[in-house]
Amino acid sequence: MPAPIVAVIGGGQLARMMATEAIELGIHLRALVNGPDDPVAQVTPDFVVGKVDDLDALARLAQGADVITCEHELIPPESFDFLERYAPLRPHPSALLYAQQKIEMRAKMDALSLPSPRWREVHSPTDVADFLAEVSTPAVVKVSHGGYDGRGVELVKTVAEYQAWAADLSPSRRVLVEEAIQFDRELAVMGSRRPGGECRLWPVVESLQVAGQCAEVVAPAPNLPAPVAARAAEIAQTIAAKLEITGNFAVEMFLRGEDLLINELAMRPHNSGHWTQDGSVTSQFEQHLRAVLDLPLGDTAPVAPYTAMANVLGSNLPDPADARAQVLGADPGAKVHLYGKSNRPARKLGHVNVCSADAEDARTRARAGANALMGKA
Amino acid sequence: MPAPIVAVIGGGQLARMMATEAIELGIHLRALVNGPDDPVAQVTPDFVVGKVDDLDALARLAQGADVITCEHELIPPESFDFLERYAPLRPHPSALLYAQQKIEMRAKMDALSLPSPRWREVHSPTDVADFLAEVSTPAVVKVSHGGYDGRGVELVKTVAEYQAWAADLSPSRRVLVEEAIQFDRELAVMGSRRPGGECRLWPVVESLQVAGQCAEVVAPAPNLPAPVAARAAEIAQTIAAKLEITGNFAVEMFLRGEDLLINELAMRPHNSGHWTQDGSVTSQFEQHLRAVLDLPLGDTAPVAPYTAMANVLGSNLPDPADARAQVLGADPGAKVHLYGKSNRPARKLGHVNVCSADAEDARTRARAGANALMGKA
Repeated sequence: MPAPIVAVIGGGQLARMMATEAIELGIHLRALVNGPDDPVAQVTPDFVVGKVDDLDALARLAQGADVITCEHELIPPESFDFLERYAPLRPHPSALLYAQQKIEMRAKMDALSLPSPRWREVHSPTDVADFLAEVSTPAVVKVSHGGYDGRGVELVKTVAEYQAWAADLSPSRRVLVEEAIQFDRELAVMGSRRPGGECRLWPVVESLQVAGQCAEVVAPAPNLPAPVAARAAEIAQTIAAKLEITGNFAVEMFLRGEDLLINELAMRPHNSGHWTQDGSVTSQFEQHLRAVLDLPLGDTAPVAPYTAMANVLGSNLPDPADARAQVLGADPGAKVHLYGKSNRPARKLGHVNVCSADAEDARTRARAGANALMGKA
Repeated sequence: MPAPIVAVIGGGQLARMMATEAIELGIHLRALVNGPDDPVAQVTPDFVVGKVDDLDALARLAQGADVITCEHELIPPESFDFLERYAPLRPHPSALLYAQQKIEMRAKMDALSLPSPRWREVHSPTDVADFLAEVSTPAVVKVSHGGYDGRGVELVKTVAEYQAWAADLSPSRRVLVEEAIQFDRELAVMGSRRPGGECRLWPVVESLQVAGQCAEVVAPAPNLPAPVAARAAEIAQTIAAKLEITGNFAVEMFLRGEDLLINELAMRPHNSGHWTQDGSVTSQFEQHLRAVLDLPLGDTAPVAPYTAMANVLGSNLPDPADARAQVLGADPGAKVHLYGKSNRPARKLGHVNVCSADAEDARTRARAGANALMGKA
């Protein structure tokens, strides 16, 4: 009996961390990568080199696969149409659309009566001017498709600032504008959903973003009022069910007072769930494989009162691994995860997880480990 | 900076489970395997096909390696002499000897005043007759080198039974005889030791053997009197230090009343530590990599009150993976590990770990999962 084959579009750290869970479960992973140096290609024997619009490469990726999934959302519809002839796509493009196109996501959240910041599609500078006048706050302009980790996003206070930002954009790019939320905390709910509807969520986490990138996560979000946590979970459950998501998803939210506002939506393993590798009965990477293969989902309970995750975002060292021994020696509870990526400023190169009975202890220690790997110690 | 390279002799499930931890730590694993279907060769891009006495293969394994380790002990001295020119051997053959040769192990334990069953090297049937008369119990005859999982071991009550067993042995094989211990429980202590002496132990576990093979492990051993646990740990620490072990080791012991007697000694990741993958802050496979690379060791604390491991020993199904969905569906807390091996009677094909607040609950659930994978459900 050959192992079931999960074909994954993308060769980055998310595919790499799927690979470790696939090995333990006896599942065969095959990845579409940019080249043999991609994080997953370094560690797995079965990968296909090619772009997401290279039909020859896609055919080799999909041949014999039991299911096709992705570790990023930058995939053209034509590729999905082609791949769907081979195996089920999970998430399906009809769901993934809402993670690919922020305008579609916002419209869908409105249609579901789920709370978003005020927003508008931008067709002209006048739309931005009107919106700024209406909301009386700074605003965030975003490309609808293709932005991530703070790219394709800008805080603007004037139409002139919008125009300066938009000058670099291709005229064909759709843009939206949202009110800039003065939030108290950033939360995220991650979960996973099977095709038949079984859905499991991890506890609500708190994330700390720096320059538009996730820097730290604490799970569960400390001192979160139970009604807020319940409401966040309810929002995530509703989105998963109504959008018929399959596989992992992350709903990032702002907490302002007692109010939750949906910020971003992802449909894949996500940075806000890296803590689960060491802090939950079931890792998000295992769960994603289970969900897309339509296998029963695993227990999402934490294994410690708190787990913190700190990202390694670039490094002043030639390689963050140069500080591996230092980090392991400084904290026997530090769990170091490195992606094998070359060092560039602010690039996600790895992360450190720490479990603790105390949230601040976990966060401080994870941060110390990541800082050392970033050459900041 | 290239990742450090750990060359491992052997391509079985122990190397495979090292591979998953190597990926997360950013360590490059290279394995010497029997063929591309070996458990680790299925999942890793860098392996060398060859036998343990094939110097060409060994050279390719060792070239550029930072350290050379092993996942079994069946390695001839000539191979070590050859490999040592390339990189440090951890464990060193001068230590590994005691895991390879039971006679050397027993003599060393005696020299260290550590408790063994009564034993004697067997040069002739008369030695067995004298020993049987002396101990007044049945005895266990063992080949000194090369037996494992109950092979090369026989319970005998008479010289005739010994002679029948020995008839199949090459005359060059050294044999020892030990008193058969009427034990109350079987315990094991696993730990890991760095070259400089840093040593960390996991809690004492209880194991249940069936037909000479490990079937189940519960960690920590339930209701073990603290002085017994302390004495077991002290024995393991002494062995690790006095034998200058590097990397993982397992000391299997019999508990008879309050007395501990050393049964077997291994120097590698070991079945009695598989529970650590899901039940400890640091997995034994991660720890072995850290120890042999002389990296600081990780926290060996459990993440749950109890963790049980049950082995999948052969299967009535064509493939144990046929029951994967059933096991995952029956118990969301069951952690399934499959090795990608072809099915043969009593062959170790995988294991199931379950964490619980209750030892018997953990054991029952792990057993249920393993039974289902064995086609016994």
